Amino acid sequence: MRRSRPPILWLVLSGILGFWLTLGCHKQSASTSASLGGSIHPYSTEMEKDDGQWLRATKDFANTRYSSLNQITIQNVSHLRVAWTFSTMVPHGQEAAPIVANNTMYVATPWPNVLYALDLTKPGAPLKWKYEPHPSPAAKGEACCDWVSRGAVFDNGKIFFNTLDGYTIALNADTGQELWRTRLADLSKGETITMAPMVVHNHVFVGNSGGEFGVRGWLAALDTSNGKLAWKAYSTGPDKEVLIGPRFRPYYNTDKGSDLGVKTWPPDAWRIGGGTVWGFLSYDPVLNLIYYGTANPGPWNAEVRPGDNKWTAGMFARDPDTGEAVWFYQMSPHDLFDWDGINEDVLVDLPLQGKLRKVLLRPDRNGHLYVIDRSTGQVLSATPYAYTNTTNGVDLQTGALRRIPDKTPKTGQVVRNICPVAPGAKDWQPSSFSPQTGLLYIPHQNMCMDEEGTEASYIAGTPYVGSTVQYYAGPGGHMGELTAWDPIAGKAAWVIKDKYPIWSGTVTTGGDLVFFGTMDGWFKAADAKTGDVLWQFKADSGIIGQPISYRGPDGKQYIAILSGIGGWPGSIVSGQLDTRDGTAANGWGKALPNIRNEVTAGGTLYVFSLP
Amino acid sequence: MRRSRPPILWLVLSGILGFWLTLGCHKQSASTSASLGGSIHPYSTEMEKDDGQWLRATKDFANTRYSSLNQITIQNVSHLRVAWTFSTMVPHGQEAAPIVANNTMYVATPWPNVLYALDLTKPGAPLKWKYEPHPSPAAKGEACCDWVSRGAVFDNGKIFFNTLDGYTIALNADTGQELWRTRLADLSKGETITMAPMVVHNHVFVGNSGGEFGVRGWLAALDTSNGKLAWKAYSTGPDKEVLIGPRFRPYYNTDKGSDLGVKTWPPDAWRIGGGTVWGFLSYDPVLNLIYYGTANPGPWNAEVRPGDNKWTAGMFARDPDTGEAVWFYQMSPHDLFDWDGINEDVLVDLPLQGKLRKVLLRPDRNGHLYVIDRSTGQVLSATPYAYTNTTNGVDLQTGALRRIPDKTPKTGQVVRNICPVAPGAKDWQPSSFSPQTGLLYIPHQNMCMDEEGTEASYIAGTPYVGSTVQYYAGPGGHMGELTAWDPIAGKAAWVIKDKYPIWSGTVTTGGDLVFFGTMDGWFKAADAKTGDVLWQFKADSGIIGQPISYRGPDGKQYIAILSGIGGWPGSIVSGQLDTRDGTAANGWGKALPNIRNEVTAGGTLYVFSLP
Repeated sequence: MRRSRPPILWLVLSGILGFWLTLGCHKQSASTSASLGGSIHPYSTEMEKDDGQWLRATKDFANTRYSSLNQITIQNVSHLRVAWTFSTMVPHGQEAAPIVANNTMYVATPWPNVLYALDLTKPGAPLKWKYEPHPSPAAKGEACCDWVSRGAVFDNGKIFFNTLDGYTIALNADTGQELWRTRLADLSKGETITMAPMVVHNHVFVGNSGGEFGVRGWLAALDTSNGKLAWKAYSTGPDKEVLIGPRFRPYYNTDKGSDLGVKTWPPDAWRIGGGTVWGFLSYDPVLNLIYYGTANPGPWNAEVRPGDNKWTAGMFARDPDTGEAVWFYQMSPHDLFDWDGINEDVLVDLPLQGKLRKVLLRPDRNGHLYVIDRSTGQVLSATPYAYTNTTNGVDLQTGALRRIPDKTPKTGQVVRNICPVAPGAKDWQPSSFSPQTGLLYIPHQNMCMDEEGTEASYIAGTPYVGSTVQYYAGPGGHMGELTAWDPIAGKAAWVIKDKYPIWSGTVTTGGDLVFFGTMDGWFKAADAKTGDVLWQFKADSGIIGQPISYRGPDGKQYIAILSGIGGWPGSIVSGQLDTRDGTAANGWGKALPNIRNEVTAGGTLYVFSLP
Repeated sequence: MRRSRPPILWLVLSGILGFWLTLGCHKQSASTSASLGGSIHPYSTEMEKDDGQWLRATKDFANTRYSSLNQITIQNVSHLRVAWTFSTMVPHGQEAAPIVANNTMYVATPWPNVLYALDLTKPGAPLKWKYEPHPSPAAKGEACCDWVSRGAVFDNGKIFFNTLDGYTIALNADTGQELWRTRLADLSKGETITMAPMVVHNHVFVGNSGGEFGVRGWLAALDTSNGKLAWKAYSTGPDKEVLIGPRFRPYYNTDKGSDLGVKTWPPDAWRIGGGTVWGFLSYDPVLNLIYYGTANPGPWNAEVRPGDNKWTAGMFARDPDTGEAVWFYQMSPHDLFDWDGINEDVLVDLPLQGKLRKVLLRPDRNGHLYVIDRSTGQVLSATPYAYTNTTNGVDLQTGALRRIPDKTPKTGQVVRNICPVAPGAKDWQPSSFSPQTGLLYIPHQNMCMDEEGTEASYIAGTPYVGSTVQYYAGPGGHMGELTAWDPIAGKAAWVIKDKYPIWSGTVTTGGDLVFFGTMDGWFKAADAKTGDVLWQFKADSGIIGQPISYRGPDGKQYIAILSGIGGWPGSIVSGQLDTRDGTAANGWGKALPNIRNEVTAGGTLYVFSLP
């Protein structure tokens, strides 16, 4: 662990950021919406302002996952204890964020995708209602990486969530009554849905999973009132299907031209080319833009798909109302390593070279922390936040990722010591940003791999990968890191190392604490300024979920997290895979040979508070 | 709740009992063993003396489930909090007692019957080893009442436990290495094993389950060193197979005569007559007798099996070394209501009519608290501890249960308002006895039923019941009670009522606390003297397990319990049964119509301590 410099500078900055994040964002949200005129969604403005709620996985539109609640502090966190618990009944990877709205907590489980509503006003938070969608069991076989769900979203009295077999469902948040359900993904093609939906205005946004099955990625917008498709933007193919039109103004030349989603692929390869959309979305209500990343191109074996493979492994800014692409940036053109670009974009306004810039912070799978002008898509900086030996930075003039040719996988040849690995320097696990410290808290991997390209044949609904990989710990021998990143200095303030990948998200609080979990079952609180671990609790199973902070009806601050190992690496435990095969769980067997003797699968919600 | 009389009298008595329980029992254990001469098992005497261990489900041979540890008190229990947790990975009924020996905790799961060893010397008690027996999946279909296991037993460096599909397994307690495995039950006939084994001298005792499948009950003794069968005593059939011989001296005339296990049945009916052995065993080292109950005769429909149906629904005292029956008493001759006699026998020495008597306390399924001279089998008293309208007490001269004829089930006719129900006033859930208060803490039901006899045809390995039952709450509208019973006064000191049956066991501590769990997920501590609930914690799932108290390597007192609803009533949740059928779970559907909307299945170990 390295110590940060004294946070004096940040006292000033945090005022600015604090304003933007807690007042600016939401007030502007209302006023911007108003200035847009026409079909304006009636924002639950009062709920947005109430920092005791947790309405969506990302906490706010900016994706900060910052809770200003400050009852739990550096001084008293050692007294934190379990207040109550709840079983999801599903011993599989629990990646969902609990949602808190109007003193009800909503918990989405992995397949069979049950949604539970717990009444926070009563002792022990008894079940208020549950909704069982009965998704197809076939979905379990189509999911690459366990049966995960990343949670639900609350908006205006409704709860929206997705099922692994491809439905988006809207419920009455008070009663659990189904309002509508819309089938979006085609299971027979290998499409599943794992992401947490997001609502902006009158649209709920949902993307697909299945990049390892030769699916074609998309983001869909459904009308929140009736579930009808408003628009659907593909990540590959002709401009009209990508919703690229007159408003599209990418910053870099490589993204300019017509139908690049077709031309940067071998003939027809874009039809099965991946670019799925399963990460978190952000929204800037002033610019009225949503931001999201696209996943890896398929198959992994890049030799069979020469070209940049637009618009995969990149990120879009779109108009949430029309779906029109406004800009795009490709972090990993012609991706070689399964580097999905689905990582979160955290919207903050940063003082850079003496000017307050509207940027997004993107800790990308390729190992770089991008600071990008969120109005234009210009990369202001791109700095490795994790060990990498496959690239040599980013050319800020062209936006190009500088690759190191020696580390190019080839069919029939094992290339060794590729860092980061296919799951990237960071996979799905979301970071958080504290306006008090000005740091981004990035949970991620420190890993390398050996990779060999293999043949890949496309058969609808079956794996389409073309690569054999084995992962192992990177320099230092540890596989996980929680890095507190200073986006202005462009360096880490401190790093916490862990034996296993830190596959959980983080939450940061007004008490200057950052909470995160480990795959071997520890839920921890660290001093957000120094990285000192001040408290830890041993859960029943590994933790790979999204911690949240909320205010209970009793006025107390609570911290909640789901335990339950699973997901990509953790499926070794939840899927009871045999690690004598080093490629088990698509490469994790070698890295986690003993984890089944250390951790058991589970699925339990833990809620903590001070006594 | 009723308050007890002041516990002044008990201060004197507790001294006597305390001596017997904590010194007398174990010291005499060693000396008695010595006086027996010959093949004497080397008792782990030091471990038996150490009240910080929990070597067997029943805590001690006397079945008191009393822990003298007294760090957690009436005054400080409100500060009790979760220390750590562990997932069994099995969201089914968790009825096992965790076992603690030499700073290792052993946790037995429901099918697939994994045994986990957790290292208590390390933070968070990581897995030390696990043993996976891979029992047959067919066992799940043969188990009447969920896939439960009631736990393991530690003896002399070995761990013994049973699998649902009928094996007894011995492991090296340090390494988890399998020492032997012996097949005892025949799954194809409907035999399963759910009980916690017990070790006395060089024998491990195991009985069968499957009374609803037309099996024939037995208790087997295996040599602890090699798993070979030493003896097997059937609960029905000829005397030689019941191990009734010259030493057999039943107290009552109805139990005298040759081959009553054949003659009290229609021809050959004893071969499929039940009398399984799945409860807890007790052992008196001075008398060198083990005590255990036999389950209901099969089928439930009693019209097809006229006679007393020896030796079912009764209890045996046997020589643990030879298996010879020494006495028998039948609580429910010609059982009408599925009243298994498998309830625990708690061995205490009580001052009765001015004389200290060696007795056993038996809170029987038929609703009576029996005080029985454990040397002879004489019933000293039998008092209803729960509401009953089917019997009119016990004739102490003849030992006969006085039945009320109106409440006799008949084929094709519904008899209503039968109290207690088929699961009895108390099912398996074990009570505890505090020498400090002199009270027996009985978790039990307050329920009535409607019953209709139906045809029953025997087909090996299929249900053989012949009865349609529907249960509901008894007088007062609550289904569960924790009764603190004064065995000398023959009345309750206090009663805690609960909405649902209290299906968990209890543990009582030197801090004058009694711990128990509820089916809707609360783990509670009550003042053992008054019944005031002083602390409660909301677990992730319903609690139907056996709480324990132990001393950790840090010298602190810990309380442990498995959560995970299931078992007979709870299988509605764990088996996802449809309660629109009132007979779901063999009668529980009507009583628990909404429980699936209130509780979720789980399987988590919770360990509590003071901060």
